[in-house]
Order: sequence, then C-alpha cells, then structure tokens
Amino acid sequence: MAKLKVKLLKLSAGRPVVILHKKFAEKSSLHVNDRVYIERRGKRIAAVVDIATGFLKQNEIVVSTEVSTAMKLKEDILIDIEPATRPKSLELIQKKLSCKKLSRKEFEEIIRDVVKNALTEAEIAYFVSAVYKCGMSMKEIAYMTKAIVDTGKRLNLKGKIVDKHSVGGVPGRTTPIVISICSSAGLLIPKTSSRAITSPAGTADAMETICKVDFTIPEIKKILRKTRACLVWGGSLNLAPADDRIIRVEKLLNLDPEAQLLASIIAKKLAVNAKYVLIDIPYGKNAKVNKKEAKNLERKFKKLAKHFNIKIACSLKKVEEPLGNGIGPALEISDVIKVLKREDSCHKLEERSLELAGKLFELTGKAKKGQGLKLARQLLDSGKALEKFREIVKAQKGKVKEIKKAKYKKDIKATKNSKIKEIKIQELNTLARIAGCPLDKAAGLYLHKHVGEEVKKGQTILTIYAESQIELKEAVKYYKRVKPIKFK
Amino acid sequence: MAKLKVKLLKLSAGRPVVILHKKFAEKSSLHVNDRVYIERRGKRIAAVVDIATGFLKQNEIVVSTEVSTAMKLKEDILIDIEPATRPKSLELIQKKLSCKKLSRKEFEEIIRDVVKNALTEAEIAYFVSAVYKCGMSMKEIAYMTKAIVDTGKRLNLKGKIVDKHSVGGVPGRTTPIVISICSSAGLLIPKTSSRAITSPAGTADAMETICKVDFTIPEIKKILRKTRACLVWGGSLNLAPADDRIIRVEKLLNLDPEAQLLASIIAKKLAVNAKYVLIDIPYGKNAKVNKKEAKNLERKFKKLAKHFNIKIACSLKKVEEPLGNGIGPALEISDVIKVLKREDSCHKLEERSLELAGKLFELTGKAKKGQGLKLARQLLDSGKALEKFREIVKAQKGKVKEIKKAKYKKDIKATKNSKIKEIKIQELNTLARIAGCPLDKAAGLYLHKHVGEEVKKGQTILTIYAESQIELKEAVKYYKRVKPIKFK
Repeated sequence: MAKLKVKLLKLSAGRPVVILHKKFAEKSSLHVNDRVYIERRGKRIAAVVDIATGFLKQNEIVVSTEVSTAMKLKEDILIDIEPATRPKSLELIQKKLSCKKLSRKEFEEIIRDVVKNALTEAEIAYFVSAVYKCGMSMKEIAYMTKAIVDTGKRLNLKGKIVDKHSVGGVPGRTTPIVISICSSAGLLIPKTSSRAITSPAGTADAMETICKVDFTIPEIKKILRKTRACLVWGGSLNLAPADDRIIRVEKLLNLDPEAQLLASIIAKKLAVNAKYVLIDIPYGKNAKVNKKEAKNLERKFKKLAKHFNIKIACSLKKVEEPLGNGIGPALEISDVIKVLKREDSCHKLEERSLELAGKLFELTGKAKKGQGLKLARQLLDSGKALEKFREIVKAQKGKVKEIKKAKYKKDIKATKNSKIKEIKIQELNTLARIAGCPLDKAAGLYLHKHVGEEVKKGQTILTIYAESQIELKEAVKYYKRVKPIKFK
Repeated sequence: MAKLKVKLLKLSAGRPVVILHKKFAEKSSLHVNDRVYIERRGKRIAAVVDIATGFLKQNEIVVSTEVSTAMKLKEDILIDIEPATRPKSLELIQKKLSCKKLSRKEFEEIIRDVVKNALTEAEIAYFVSAVYKCGMSMKEIAYMTKAIVDTGKRLNLKGKIVDKHSVGGVPGRTTPIVISICSSAGLLIPKTSSRAITSPAGTADAMETICKVDFTIPEIKKILRKTRACLVWGGSLNLAPADDRIIRVEKLLNLDPEAQLLASIIAKKLAVNAKYVLIDIPYGKNAKVNKKEAKNLERKFKKLAKHFNIKIACSLKKVEEPLGNGIGPALEISDVIKVLKREDSCHKLEERSLELAGKLFELTGKAKKGQGLKLARQLLDSGKALEKFREIVKAQKGKVKEIKKAKYKKDIKATKNSKIKEIKIQELNTLARIAGCPLDKAAGLYLHKHVGEEVKKGQTILTIYAESQIELKEAVKYYKRVKPIKFK
C-alpha cells in the first residue's frame, strides 16, 4: 500500500479513473487499465489506472470526478492506493474457458462484475471466447439471460406488450414501418433500437434524422401513454447494461456466439415486459446465417422464450441484398416515408414490412392465421400507418419531412448492357461508412438497380452521397477497387 | 468524419490518447479504448479514445502530448477525426480462434500490431484464448518466437553468452546465487529479470533492495564489460515488447498457454544472443506443472532451441514448498546473502542453486559431465561467488548490506505438538502481498519451519512482516482464515 497526494481535475470519465505517474506505476507493477483500490477513512472504491508524466509528480494521483465525488476528496489530501484483488468471477471465466458448465449463481457473479465495471474488456473477451469455443446449454443461456435482466433497469409497463427484433445483417429499415402498422391496429410497442456499430445506420440513427430518439424512461412512458408506440434509442436506458458491454467486446472480432445472441435479445425483451415477440431472421449467402443455422436459431429462440413465458414467432426469409434503395440514416428513413406515403414500394422493403406486421397480428391474435398480411396491407393502404408514424414522430418532438440531400454526389453508371448478378452487402456497408455514415446523416448510397434487373450502358446503377469531396473521392476509389455490384 | 477543436493538456500517457466529449462519442458510436484516426494536412495517426464531460465542449478534443508532438498541434486548431479501420490482424486472430494454422507472414502481422499498439488488450485476449484453446504446432511457435524477437531491441553481445530461466511458480531466489557462482568461473551472463506481477517479488524487486536494476542497454553493456554478469530489470529494455504486452493480458486470467510460454522464453534468450540456456522446471502438486507436463515441456524446449541453434538443458525438480525461508523482496535477498556468505543454507535454496549452477557448467563445458556440482560448490565455499556478487551489486551502484526490517511483525505459533504436512504456495504468496509485497520491500514472510519438520506447541512457525499495522492485521486475519500451513 502506498500513500499519494490527490490532485483534482474536472474530468468525468464515465467510470472511476485515476492517473498515476509513470515511475510510480512501474515500481508498483501497475499498467494502463489495471484496477486499484483507493482508500481513505475506511471508505474504499475501485478505479481504473491511467498513466502519465509531466502532468503530475511521482507521489501524486489525479482522480476523475467519479472518484472525488464518491470519496469526498479535496486537493492535496493523502489517500492510500493498492492493487485491486482479483474479482472472483475471473475464476469462473477460467472455468468456462475449460468448457465446464456454470451454475445460476456463477452467471450472476460474472454478470454483476461486468455491470459494476469490475471486469476489464480483456477479461470480458476471455468470457466471450469461452462462450464462442465451448457453447452453452439451454439452462446456462436461461441463467445468463435472467442475470442480464436482473442487473438492468426495466420499463415496467402493464398490458399486452409487443416487440420485434431482427437478427440483422441485411440493410433495410423495416422497423418503423412494422411498428407504425401494428400500433395503428392498437398494439402496444415500446420499441428500443441501437445505433450503428459496424453498419452504416441503426434504426436510432435513421429516426434521429427526423425526431429525437434519446429519452429517459419516464419520458418514454409519457410518449407511450400518448401513442402506444415509440421508436427510441435504447443505448442510454440501461435496460441490459451487461449485454451492452459484452456486445462491444464481441464486435471487436465480429464474434456473435449463438448463446450470447439468444440471451441478449430475450433479455432486452424481458426488460420491456414484452409478452409477444417476433424475431426476423434473414438468411442467405450475404446474410449473417445460412438456412440451417436460421432453423436452428428458431428452435432455440422458441425454447428460451418458453422458459420465460414469452409467446414468440420467428420469420425466416432468404434475403441477399438490401431490402430498400437507400443506405445511410437519412436515405433509409426516406425509403420508410415513401412506403408509408404509398409513393414507392422501395424494392422489397414494403413486401417484407407487410409480412412481418402480418406475422405479429397473427401472433397476438389481432388476425386469424393466414389473415395477418391482409390486415397489414389495409392499414398501410388506408393511410392509418402513416398517421400513426406521424403521431410517434410528433411525440418524439420531430416532424415527418423531406430531408436535405448531402452536399456532394457521384453517379456510378453501367459500362455496358448487362444484368445485375450479385450485390455484396458487407462491401456496400463499408462503402457507405467511407462516404461518412453514420456521423454524416445524409451521406450514404442509393441503389437504382437491384439483383436480376437489366442495366443499359450509361444508366445510373448507384449514387454515392457525401458531405465532403474528400470522402466522396475516397468512396468512389473504394467502389472501383472492390466492385461490390457484380454483373452477369 | 468530423472536425474538432484541439485542446492541449500536458498529459503524456505513454501512448497516443484523445479525450472526447461524452455526447460526441455517443453520437459517433465511439467508446473508451476504441481507436480513432486523427488527420490534419495529410498527416494521420491512430489514438486511443478516452471519454469525459465537464472538461471540454462537444466540439473539442483533448490530445495527449504523444498526439500533439507527432502532429505538431496547437491550441484551437481544427482536426479531422474518424473511427479507425480494423487492423488486418483481427481477421488472423479470428482465423486462429477457429483453430486454423497461421503462416510466418500472419504471425508477423499480429505481432507487429501488438507492438505498435494497434490491438487493444481485449483483442490480444482473443489471441491468447485462441492459443490456449487450439494450441500451436512447433512450426507456428517458431514463427511467433522469431516475430517477437524481430520486433524488439537486441543486446548485440559477442561471445559465449549464457542464460538461465525458471518456468516459475515456486518462490526462492536461486538466480542471484547461480549467476554469481557461474560468472565467478568466467561465464558471460547478461541476466534480465522481471518484477513481481502476481507473486510477492520478482528477481528485479529483490535486487532493488540493495542496488539499482533499471538501466539502459548501453549502461548494461558497460556493466558487463566490468563484471561479465548483471542482474537487471528487463521490463524497460524493450527486448520483446510484444511478449511483455501478451503476458500482461495472460496474467489477467492466470493463463499460460504452453505455446506462448515457449515462444516467450526463447525469444528473450535470442534477444540477448544467448548460446547456452538452462531452463529450471519445478514440478509438483503446488507448482505450475506436474511431472508429465514438465517432461513434455522439456521435449518442446529442446526442439525449439534446436531450431534457433541454442544449446539447451532443462533441470526438472520436484519442489512443493518455498526453497528458502524468506518471501518478499528484502527477505529473499537476505536468504541469498546468507547462502553466499556461508552463514545459512536457507532450507533448500543452497542445494537447488548449486544443482542449477552445476548443470550450467556441464552444458557450457566448464565442467565434465557429473563434475558440475563439485565445481559449483568449490566456488561457493571459497567465497569467489560472494566476491562476484559484490562486484555485480557495486557495478549496479549498490552495496551488499543488512536490510532494515519492516516496522511491524507478528509471530505465528504452533498451537500443539505436531509435524508440518503441507505448505500451500499460492496462499503464502497472497498472504505476502496482503502484508504489502512487492511495494513495501521489507514486508513479507519468514518461514521458521518447513514440510516434514516437527513443531512444538508455542514454537514460532512463521513471522509476518509489514510496514503498517493495518496491513499486518489484515495479513493475520487472512492467515487464520485460509491456513496455508497444514499440520499432520
């Protein structure tokens, strides 16, 4: 244990952080991202180590506001510091890494440590590796799901709550359309969505081009009382904070262990008290899973949902190219508005949205088996869904409007008469991100042609939008190098 | 891409760091420890993200001196920032995580990214998991070893260079004794050691109680010209920086994949140009490996060493309790001095040190087969080894002296007449750390009795030393709870 003199800095880092002098850190075998205990007058908290020089003396410690507030520290006070003991959950992660089964209590221990920041990202990576290499039994998945829900906040709504979720991988903003259709028939849908992590846009990024998406739980409840549906960002609600942290570590390697995927989705549905859940599972060569994996996922979703008393349906669909024309926050929401206004079906976006809405009607008993699609189409054609969408956007302090196009654009044209053979989703996503998505909301791509369509020499196939000429240039360069659209 | 206004702060973090405003980070889907590119006038570097509020505005970015120096940034300048692209080595880590073999080029790619900080600790954890779960072929181990050496500095010494290494796990400071004996016979031994990470003391911590251990490479060469041996800290020499980073991540979970262990040790020996290497492999119930694993390790060490043209010997020994009496930096160096001064053999410390020195004499041809032990004992008994040790310590700006005892101590006494059955090494290590090791150099434990010895009621078995009463109390509490010494 060593004594150090406190230096305050108005740095709130979102977690307790201390900055130590490099020499002191070396002597104490402490490294960046290590954990230490800070102790004073019997009070003790854990903090993450950052290391600096020039900035402080060897016997000084700079603390973030999270530390100074919790410990009531003032400038020049002396505090004790010592390396933090190993969290017990590390042994459990080690156990899982040897492919042994964990108990309910053991999952609770790990998930609790994830939430209270007692585990570093590297330690969580070991847990993800273990789940990836060893898998989990259905019992273990249920334990983990429960632990994730129990360590998060809940929406605590009453009534017949409905939710949908897509396993993801294929661009196309069906969610705002499905939610508008279903809610216009009276279903209660508190939809929380994510922002883009590796894709050009998440539903939250897209909605944000026309309204607010960042609300507190009481604000969301107020919106729901008005409109019985919302389309908000789930990221700041802390519904499943353990899952949020684990997903971030998974994304580093684009790992998505099946067990974690199941627990993650069901936990988020339990946090909003959903009783009816529809899972959208696109499969195919350019999607996340193939047909066999999709069927296997369906079986496991059903098993896990049963355990938690959720009525579930899965909609498996072969999809191998973007559902709509636009890719990017504003361009995707434009597609949504066009479909709702009946101006354009936007390739397969309308068809798929209707299918999903129809399935939800049948699952909840709003429509008899085989009649869901018909009801969905009626609500879309009659303008009721559009009306509902306007209501939701208004409640979220926005307006359904034309979105300003990006400053620069480049049309990519066909160099010969041909037919489109394949559109590579992953490469299109990268292209849209190079063009500026998701930071530049109006940046992105517009597909004029889809798989199977004829193109004539000189016809525009794709338009790239960007807010700066540099980004546009970079995107065009990438397009030419990678050729994400294949011709026959 | 977004533009942010630079705020300077005299923070040198040892790596390029930027602090972003929480709101900006959320909108850009950036998180603590993510990597971003900073760009200005065609110059571009990667930096690690930290997040804060209060401290800066949404459109501002605080940069560490590593960033401001490299990019020549001034206060209020506008710079571009964008999420960093995935390093290519992530795909290779993913490949290894699927248990596929990697090529020489692929190992070079991964190790290069580890060294230039392009991989986060979580990403390195995935690599360690992959090696842990899938193992590596001897070919792969050789590729990795070579990549680790090639990305580090080298000592570039000429001559018949000798080195030793312990696989570790059992306390007992044989190294200073072995090096003193062997060097007094003329062997050239540039010994670099580590500080304690999870143990109460490393050789560097122990030596530091009587001399300096932190030198630059030119300083070490100067010492070697004088004394033909040194006992320095290897941590700041950058001999195998990739390995240093990987080991830190392994330690989080106390993982020590065999392939990594082999590559790590041989790489460090190659970096000092060692031609003769002795590996000390203690095995047994309380050691790191059992007999079978020890034999297996020996076989692989021999194979890998042959590949790099190193003459190697392994010394397997069943060891199930600390070799000496002291545990902790100062207490262990006291044992070393007692053995060298012929005052006390300190349990099995003298015997094991002589064995190891003898093996080295036989390996290097200084003694005929079967005659090494005799030569070692002569050099110890004649005082030549002590003389050599004094020379080394003097060259490292220190003095062989009595070390001041810690302020507080507590004798643990036997409660009945009995015999010691077992001493649990891991628990003793934890006990010593609770008492203040390695930060408090004089803290630690002194074992008055060893396995198999008779104890009488009231006799002192163990003394705990600490620099504060709180730590002493905590240590005694831990001793009583865990009972690391078992009686018959």
